[in-house]
Amino acid sequence: MERKKIFLGEEEIPRQWYNILADIKMNPPLGPDGKPVSPEMLAPVFPMNLIEQEVSSQRWIDIPEEVLRIYRIWRPSPLVRAFALEKALDTPAHIYFKYEGTSPPGSHKPNTAVPQAYYNKVFGIKRLVTETGAGQWGSALAFACAQFGLECKVYMVRVSFDQKPYRKVMMQTWGANCVPSPSTETKAGRDILAEHPDSPGSLGIAISEAVEAAVSDGSGRTRYSLGSVLNHVMLHQTVIGLEAKKQMEIAGEYPDVVIGCAGGGSNFAGLAFPFVYDKIHGRQVAIHPVEPTACPTLTKAPYVYDHGDTAGYTPLLPMHSLGHTFMPPPVHAGGLRYHGMAPTVSQLVVEGLLEPRSYGQMATFEAGMLIARAEGIIPAPETNHAIACVVDEARRAKEEGKAKVILFNWSGHGLIDLGSYEKYLSGSLRDFDYPAREIEEAGKILAKYPKPQILKSR
Amino acid sequence: MERKKIFLGEEEIPRQWYNILADIKMNPPLGPDGKPVSPEMLAPVFPMNLIEQEVSSQRWIDIPEEVLRIYRIWRPSPLVRAFALEKALDTPAHIYFKYEGTSPPGSHKPNTAVPQAYYNKVFGIKRLVTETGAGQWGSALAFACAQFGLECKVYMVRVSFDQKPYRKVMMQTWGANCVPSPSTETKAGRDILAEHPDSPGSLGIAISEAVEAAVSDGSGRTRYSLGSVLNHVMLHQTVIGLEAKKQMEIAGEYPDVVIGCAGGGSNFAGLAFPFVYDKIHGRQVAIHPVEPTACPTLTKAPYVYDHGDTAGYTPLLPMHSLGHTFMPPPVHAGGLRYHGMAPTVSQLVVEGLLEPRSYGQMATFEAGMLIARAEGIIPAPETNHAIACVVDEARRAKEEGKAKVILFNWSGHGLIDLGSYEKYLSGSLRDFDYPAREIEEAGKILAKYPKPQILKSR
Repeated sequence: MERKKIFLGEEEIPRQWYNILADIKMNPPLGPDGKPVSPEMLAPVFPMNLIEQEVSSQRWIDIPEEVLRIYRIWRPSPLVRAFALEKALDTPAHIYFKYEGTSPPGSHKPNTAVPQAYYNKVFGIKRLVTETGAGQWGSALAFACAQFGLECKVYMVRVSFDQKPYRKVMMQTWGANCVPSPSTETKAGRDILAEHPDSPGSLGIAISEAVEAAVSDGSGRTRYSLGSVLNHVMLHQTVIGLEAKKQMEIAGEYPDVVIGCAGGGSNFAGLAFPFVYDKIHGRQVAIHPVEPTACPTLTKAPYVYDHGDTAGYTPLLPMHSLGHTFMPPPVHAGGLRYHGMAPTVSQLVVEGLLEPRSYGQMATFEAGMLIARAEGIIPAPETNHAIACVVDEARRAKEEGKAKVILFNWSGHGLIDLGSYEKYLSGSLRDFDYPAREIEEAGKILAKYPKPQILKSR
Repeated sequence: MERKKIFLGEEEIPRQWYNILADIKMNPPLGPDGKPVSPEMLAPVFPMNLIEQEVSSQRWIDIPEEVLRIYRIWRPSPLVRAFALEKALDTPAHIYFKYEGTSPPGSHKPNTAVPQAYYNKVFGIKRLVTETGAGQWGSALAFACAQFGLECKVYMVRVSFDQKPYRKVMMQTWGANCVPSPSTETKAGRDILAEHPDSPGSLGIAISEAVEAAVSDGSGRTRYSLGSVLNHVMLHQTVIGLEAKKQMEIAGEYPDVVIGCAGGGSNFAGLAFPFVYDKIHGRQVAIHPVEPTACPTLTKAPYVYDHGDTAGYTPLLPMHSLGHTFMPPPVHAGGLRYHGMAPTVSQLVVEGLLEPRSYGQMATFEAGMLIARAEGIIPAPETNHAIACVVDEARRAKEEGKAKVILFNWSGHGLIDLGSYEKYLSGSLRDFDYPAREIEEAGKILAKYPKPQILKSR
């Protein structure tokens, strides 16, 4: 009997995260003066223990015992063989997914929310402020803060706040306070509302609000927390790929193709970086981050220096960017509506180690419906982007008659996103035109910024 | 290190269900003539292979390979030690739960939906009709039908249909057709609407509609499917308790107390019956089915013969019943709003093997909030009834200074029920008065029915 799922015992949760900074060169983040940002400059925003992790180039970083204790609520997550999808596609490919939907908030996000809450707690912080797009990150941080007795405040992109009222309730159930962004609580929010009173919000705006709210809190016991993009976030997520490698070994296979959806990059990186490590060291594997055609950061945008947020509060980060004023069309994959990308993921694209792909909204929901009926699990709209790419790869394997091994990251379930499925089923969902003019407009602002070097690590 | 979760390998899913009919005496179901119903009389409603299972007294019944294949999508389910709840309650008790929320529809219901769909498919049936209260059952059957390529039609109690729009979308995503009940599609529905145009519906009404729709379909290829109450449903659910026994053995403990919420009885029976078997054979264990005080079937109602549905289409079943015309108050635990009880569960109460408990809605949500913040998982409102009882037992253990072992069934997650948490959090949820007058009214009708014998199996 071939196994459907491969579970690991709790004692097999990795004891260390993999830090890709040990294996690649990176352009530094820059301050307002155009000079590299020093760790001290970030101290009002993040606790120093996380800043140290952000800049560390140590390859393996120990996972604290207290973090492992909380990870055990849902980790190790299962690796699943998608036999029914293979059958539905009549493909010789072997399709595996790492299923991150078993965490209490339903996604991969607590992999970093838990250590972030832990390090803040250890540093003496009492309250965390963050933003959230689709709500996966906000609810993950709410969950993590409840575990460590921290207060939690979440600015949620308004379009998602309205589309997904249950996400707010989830956060409240775990004791967090959630408000729609742009809000009137911050200068960044008020400035946006003055110009666009009906603004649907964006991740960039919400980040500005959360950063402002965190650093302007006079207590000294409040910090900001980010659910993607930064190096330490990618680091924490590698627990996914490290587990998946052990599980693939048990299955007796190694992936020919690794796939993950990419918004800020953390879900993709979590699965992919441990395989990127192998690729750097000579192993052959195709690795695809997948994004919406409506927000095509890796597939259409230049590699530049840009702010991580709309108001320009964050340092300049070396990344692919559509411009920090770009307002992505309201696709339902709220977690992928971000103008930038994790600098580590961007650097890997620059180095030619990754091959990004993009899909339109309708194609992603078609893929999601296919797998929901075949495998039984309803995916988050973000995950549907990875699945659309899996379906293409599996069809190609059939054309080529190759028993390719495909591994993808099932970032979360879609049970809080059923409103988007309702729209799809009733025929009222649509693709968005490629927002060429908006991207061009937003991109103009980038001309005045410094340019990152094109670094090659080997 | 004490383990947080205990997983079993896929090869350890039980290969047989436990049939409690081998170990207890039962009153037979009666037809309209007051005589025991013959299997043939049920043939228009259920396929003969399931009817045979319904009346079988064979102790162990093989689980078909095709059912095991689908079970492997989410089974074996984890057994979890609730360390954080123990700490929050400062109790010496060891609290374990069997977590059934990892199934694609999010509850224990697919444990029987899958075999029911399978047996119908094998018998040549093309279409299944059912009802659903909270929506857990309807979505489980939709999921199972998608796995076997059957059509699926669901009558959903209107109050839940309105409260939980996402449940309908889930069913549609899996290809099912879901309508609110009472509907105008059946005589049973039309009769209710003529008298009560604003009827919020009830499980009893929805069962009438589904049975009528199934038997009046002229094709001969349509059958009815029930998610609780019947013997074969309890049988299929025992996979929960059989797994739990293996897992408790690995944990090196045996429960002093076993707890499950009880609406129609299937979630409770699934965990409890394998432990009832031990109790029958001399082992000491307290076993509590838990129900809402607003719908107190086991704690307040008499053991009688009554119909399973409101219109009186079903045979008379020997069970505790509030009367088939009783309309339970609109508590949010829709899965527990049922006037009757599984005859097997009722018989065990008659025999003194179970000690039923009841809780008010507010107490159950308080318990749910406590565990959601401690353990991180948000429970279904039905599960909150079991948890309220667990909290009481854990507090008693503290008073008595006893390291009691408590095991409960976490029937499902509450992610589609967050609307009820929102009401709780905003202070607009309330307890209902004990519906004494309504119960008395509904009970009067029972006077004209035959009375079941008080059987003692030993």
